[in-house]
Amino acid sequence: MDKLKKKIIECGEVLSGDVLKVGSFLNQQIDTKLLFEMGKEIADKFAADNVTKILTIEASGIALAVATAFYLNVPVVFAKKHQSSNVTGNIYSAEVKSFTQGKTYTVVVSSDYISCNDKVLIVDDFLALGQAVNGMTELVSKAHAQLAGCGISIEKGFSGGGDCLRDKGIKVYSLAIIDSMESGKIIFRAE
Amino acid sequence: MDKLKKKIIECGEVLSGDVLKVGSFLNQQIDTKLLFEMGKEIADKFAADNVTKILTIEASGIALAVATAFYLNVPVVFAKKHQSSNVTGNIYSAEVKSFTQGKTYTVVVSSDYISCNDKVLIVDDFLALGQAVNGMTELVSKAHAQLAGCGISIEKGFSGGGDCLRDKGIKVYSLAIIDSMESGKIIFRAE
Repeated sequence: MDKLKKKIIECGEVLSGDVLKVGSFLNQQIDTKLLFEMGKEIADKFAADNVTKILTIEASGIALAVATAFYLNVPVVFAKKHQSSNVTGNIYSAEVKSFTQGKTYTVVVSSDYISCNDKVLIVDDFLALGQAVNGMTELVSKAHAQLAGCGISIEKGFSGGGDCLRDKGIKVYSLAIIDSMESGKIIFRAE
Repeated sequence: MDKLKKKIIECGEVLSGDVLKVGSFLNQQIDTKLLFEMGKEIADKFAADNVTKILTIEASGIALAVATAFYLNVPVVFAKKHQSSNVTGNIYSAEVKSFTQGKTYTVVVSSDYISCNDKVLIVDDFLALGQAVNGMTELVSKAHAQLAGCGISIEKGFSGGGDCLRDKGIKVYSLAIIDSMESGKIIFRAE
């Protein structure tokens, strides 16, 4: 998606340890107009896939999930990273290793919100090693739901997680795939 | 907002300790259609207030903030509960006591994303004692920004936080105000 790539070049900052900071427009401050264009782009890509539900993980995936859900007209479910007093009853859980935080956490979702009748589109802001997506596919699988695929804003192609999912036959659509950030220079994969 | 109140009666669950579980449509699974109607309602209420930015706290405020921002056509900023490697440089911070989690945490926002030129609308899913909103007004104040007011989906009127903010002259608009949940029976404040 050209507009996103342009914004990444203009406003993204490459930090040490392969961290790409996009806080000014994507995951702390959100450019609302761009967000809904991104959501529409993902919704269009999965328009024929009979998606019944969008699944994301709190917190930074929620905005894109909501924007995509607006166009697909389906509910959003977000997995929680911390079990609060508001998640009760039967749950599905999975372990996720966070790239930016350098730790492993458990994500949980109530079994009331994903069922075997659902076809689930996973949406997230970043895909690097694919740990978060793997955790979410595990939740989908535990619920005996079908997986429609994954819609991602920025994929770190050089981390390999996205291609690994594609090799498994999963439909992964990333709005921008970065193949290299060496020396702070961002190179996108050709579409 | 009648549609939200109806949904709370139909799908909300009163748990012990004055917890209202609305995970089936608001803060774990999101009813997308209702969410955008709620966002529109809040946006309409603040349409004449020259809002330049919407501020919320991750995670469950993000969805309503994004839906409201869609109609006001302004950026969303969300304060983070945990400082990650992606929040760098100067920050504003405030302490918030969580009602549902029973603990105090620090919320942070980069000083790049709120400035003295901003007029900020605070949006959140719940308002009880007002701790989260107080934390956010502190962030707004530290940034020397103006406060337009607060848009809330569900206010626990019996907890007093909303009225306390109103007494300070802050414009607080809650889509549903619950005045009592005694014995599991939900009574709304008349509009």
